[in-house]
Amino acid sequence: MNWPNTRLTERLRIRYPIIQAPMAGGATTAELVAAVSNAGGLGSFAGGYLQPEEIRAAINEIRTLTDRPFAVNLFVPAPVKEDGDRIDRANALLAAYREELGMTGTAPHWRELPKFSEQLAVILEEAVEVFSFTFGVPRAEELEALQQRGIVTLGTATHLLEAIVLEESGVDMVVAQGIEAGGHRGTFVGPPEQGLVGTLALIPVLPDHLRIPFIAAGGIMGGRGIAAAMALGADGVQMGTAFLTCPESGAPPAHKEILNEGTEITTVLTRAFTGKLARGIKNRFVSEMQPHEAELPGYPIQHVLTRDIRQTAARRNRSEFMALWAGQGCALCHKNNYPAGELIAEWTAQVAKILNR
Amino acid sequence: MNWPNTRLTERLRIRYPIIQAPMAGGATTAELVAAVSNAGGLGSFAGGYLQPEEIRAAINEIRTLTDRPFAVNLFVPAPVKEDGDRIDRANALLAAYREELGMTGTAPHWRELPKFSEQLAVILEEAVEVFSFTFGVPRAEELEALQQRGIVTLGTATHLLEAIVLEESGVDMVVAQGIEAGGHRGTFVGPPEQGLVGTLALIPVLPDHLRIPFIAAGGIMGGRGIAAAMALGADGVQMGTAFLTCPESGAPPAHKEILNEGTEITTVLTRAFTGKLARGIKNRFVSEMQPHEAELPGYPIQHVLTRDIRQTAARRNRSEFMALWAGQGCALCHKNNYPAGELIAEWTAQVAKILNR
Repeated sequence: MNWPNTRLTERLRIRYPIIQAPMAGGATTAELVAAVSNAGGLGSFAGGYLQPEEIRAAINEIRTLTDRPFAVNLFVPAPVKEDGDRIDRANALLAAYREELGMTGTAPHWRELPKFSEQLAVILEEAVEVFSFTFGVPRAEELEALQQRGIVTLGTATHLLEAIVLEESGVDMVVAQGIEAGGHRGTFVGPPEQGLVGTLALIPVLPDHLRIPFIAAGGIMGGRGIAAAMALGADGVQMGTAFLTCPESGAPPAHKEILNEGTEITTVLTRAFTGKLARGIKNRFVSEMQPHEAELPGYPIQHVLTRDIRQTAARRNRSEFMALWAGQGCALCHKNNYPAGELIAEWTAQVAKILNR
Repeated sequence: MNWPNTRLTERLRIRYPIIQAPMAGGATTAELVAAVSNAGGLGSFAGGYLQPEEIRAAINEIRTLTDRPFAVNLFVPAPVKEDGDRIDRANALLAAYREELGMTGTAPHWRELPKFSEQLAVILEEAVEVFSFTFGVPRAEELEALQQRGIVTLGTATHLLEAIVLEESGVDMVVAQGIEAGGHRGTFVGPPEQGLVGTLALIPVLPDHLRIPFIAAGGIMGGRGIAAAMALGADGVQMGTAFLTCPESGAPPAHKEILNEGTEITTVLTRAFTGKLARGIKNRFVSEMQPHEAELPGYPIQHVLTRDIRQTAARRNRSEFMALWAGQGCALCHKNNYPAGELIAEWTAQVAKILNR
């Protein structure tokens, strides 16, 4: 086995083909991103929900902590379908939670969300080493601008056709996201069910069809998972849940506590929080909203409608109303309560042992 | 890496820790089972739907083709909930398909299905080397009778708790079935959603909790997948879809043709055919029944109601009404059109290369 795989590491200028996944919502602090990059992996900062100047501040902060490459991740926008009836019905359902949390005020309009073009401008101006994205493909002129600044691009695919679309669009590398992955599904071509393939089945299909490097994501929690992904033919791995319980992770304390509870946590795919299918721990909010999922507004409208509920719940440590994003590997989170750098050192030693290097 | 893993191969008296999965419905012919066992793996005959004397005849036929160990698989019964309204509604939905296929007659009563105790009696009398099962755990006296005859028992688990239940019941080995797997989910503890974990996330949780050997199933299609499963810590693999397009496979021609179409086949989990969640290729029947899934009778009632429709469709090569069971690895089926023995030789050579043995 080719470990570490040089075609990926040389292009990204990293030592180990281990990418810390961007996790929107605050888990990917500057400290976490820098710790991963300093340990020889590639840290990723999740900028999708942030205003351009917040992203710039984070980039500057990360740069005070590391001189190694890191990635910034954004959400590629898609047309928004605004359906007043759906919004009214969703708000009626959410009113009970607002009341239970003693909240006042109303949700902002989705048009007040950060604009992709302005977020991307910061990536270009700051010439971040790696730009990763999900939910689609940036426009040709955007990809060209990134290329001109020497920024490596990483797109997210959830099935073969999406990976081919990314390669043909000129994207540099593909993150292939298996069904195990926590957080949002990146599916942007075909019906959602087409993008629900397990990592073990998804990765071995790619070598025959892609020339560009591809990275396995979903369910990878340590050395065993990394070695398995390499055996499947991946050039590297992206791991999110594996870093959620690190001291550097910005996941709220209640979130970390539940992840550390161990082996009998069940995650589910839900549209309840953002209108887009995403994997998290099944809590009261997810269970109660389940019968209404089909009627909820799409992304980003539902995201805006529930955001202040989630934020208020996080501040008050009320995990039953928080979005407890996690992948199916979360049963192993309790083993990953170490600094990110120590985890990477342990994992890479284990991989070398498994692959007899 | 310990390849081939001796703790499993020695107990099963096989050369390679590769089990051909039992696939009820006719795919696991005596020829396929014997070919796998003769190549150093463990063939499995699917007896779940068959009458005791049909199982005995198959065992005898396999024994004329190989003197190596093989497994016979049965479905452990659970209490049946008979709901007349559900049955009437299902029959009303199915009438249109019967008419389209020009079928007459009605479905037999589910009480006419083969009885587990009588099927098991054949396994015991014939002293088959390995008995594998799914949908639950046999009763203590049944497991004891198997043990007394030196029959190795293999139970199916879809999440950690089920694996622990199997071990504590005295079962010899666990097949851990990931969400990628084709055919029925084996889930028997907790809600169905608890048993939908990707193989890559499911396997690494087991080593800390099980003393007995465990076998990875779901999405494994060749040498890469086998090596990945071994890297994850599994003692061996079980592969079904990987053998479906072998010449020895008894899958109907229309089924094999669709599997060979290649990379853009989508599989889904459906209750439409049998009342129990199972993975197959999305065809017209699955799509049209989808909105009614929640109202259908449970297993085995729905199985009995749709059986003659599926059988008639198979005889007439009408794939839109057949149960096209397949796992998420089916995008690679077109590579597996070789005799089972050749496939096993190719895969094991590839595993040795990946794991540097």
